[in-house]
Amino acid sequence: MAGAVSWKQLLINALESNSNLKHSSFLQLATVGSNGRPANRTVVFRGFLDDTHKIQINTDSRSRKVFHLGIEDLRHCPFGEICWYFTDTWEQFRINGKIDIIDDTVLDPIKLQQRDKAWFASSLKSKLQYLGPKPGIPCFSEEPPPQQFSLDPSTGPVSAFCLLVLDPDQVDYVNLKTNDRLAFTSQTSVNGEKCWNTERINP
Amino acid sequence: MAGAVSWKQLLINALESNSNLKHSSFLQLATVGSNGRPANRTVVFRGFLDDTHKIQINTDSRSRKVFHLGIEDLRHCPFGEICWYFTDTWEQFRINGKIDIIDDTVLDPIKLQQRDKAWFASSLKSKLQYLGPKPGIPCFSEEPPPQQFSLDPSTGPVSAFCLLVLDPDQVDYVNLKTNDRLAFTSQTSVNGEKCWNTERINP
Repeated sequence: MAGAVSWKQLLINALESNSNLKHSSFLQLATVGSNGRPANRTVVFRGFLDDTHKIQINTDSRSRKVFHLGIEDLRHCPFGEICWYFTDTWEQFRINGKIDIIDDTVLDPIKLQQRDKAWFASSLKSKLQYLGPKPGIPCFSEEPPPQQFSLDPSTGPVSAFCLLVLDPDQVDYVNLKTNDRLAFTSQTSVNGEKCWNTERINP
Repeated sequence: MAGAVSWKQLLINALESNSNLKHSSFLQLATVGSNGRPANRTVVFRGFLDDTHKIQINTDSRSRKVFHLGIEDLRHCPFGEICWYFTDTWEQFRINGKIDIIDDTVLDPIKLQQRDKAWFASSLKSKLQYLGPKPGIPCFSEEPPPQQFSLDPSTGPVSAFCLLVLDPDQVDYVNLKTNDRLAFTSQTSVNGEKCWNTERINP
């Protein structure tokens, strides 16, 4: 029975049911630092990549290792686990997979196009954050940073803008209202396509 | 200026301000699996250990590695990073530190007392979860698990009950409403006491 519903559909349903809450698109992304310790931070879900199961997140490539999502850390250990708890429907998704870093050093034209698309899909306010003072660096002045940057809406991504694409290979779903729990694991077939197996788990 | 407020006080204030929300005590705990990949899950804050800065979390020592907080993983890499986002006040705490596992194999009488205390502080409903079927194991039957277990309230912790104590050594605080950001880092003095330094950071 459980095999009938994909985790992507469950996630789309959860986003829909919790869409009245601003924080419903906020998730926690865990990675491993180059010191071998875990790191964890809230990031914003930026949709699936085209019609795939891959999850898009934007980040600032200037971010300091200790307190932000460290791109250098990700190069060291390219895996992440999302923990996404929906506060209205009491559903939790844990999504583990490999993260692809698409910054301005990438050469693949298709990936650069994906980065462009993610940039143009961002709000002006989001975009301006990539023009602000270097993030994660102590500010010694009490002065607020200059708020007015000019930004031509037709200009492509600034160099600090980085798209992360998490390609899930296992997903754990739990609904605390119904006590339903499903484990989704993927296998890659001979033609390179991912197929998902669903297993019902005792919560 | 910032040095005047401790992160513990900020956290106590956030818990107070968000106490109308059931999920305000829910946080995401990241660890590193024995496969070197990050793991992340929602757990419940069980208060500070006595009058220290240490954070208490309860878990089930039978939990399966892949989908639960794996005790074996923690033995392999005893560090964790909490990411705790308060949805009403838009505050995020990231708390990194070493995790002490206090299960029924521990010999230290003080630690065993802490575990007893955590057990007796738990609700009957919480306690009963440690008596239920082994968590994380696929259930092949559609039958609900037996709901009636007898549990003498004066009996100490069952063997599956495990107390985790996270001893923070750095905390990153950000308030998305005010754009305040503070980095707290600890140093251990010669007498073994932790002192905290506060630094204001550009968010």
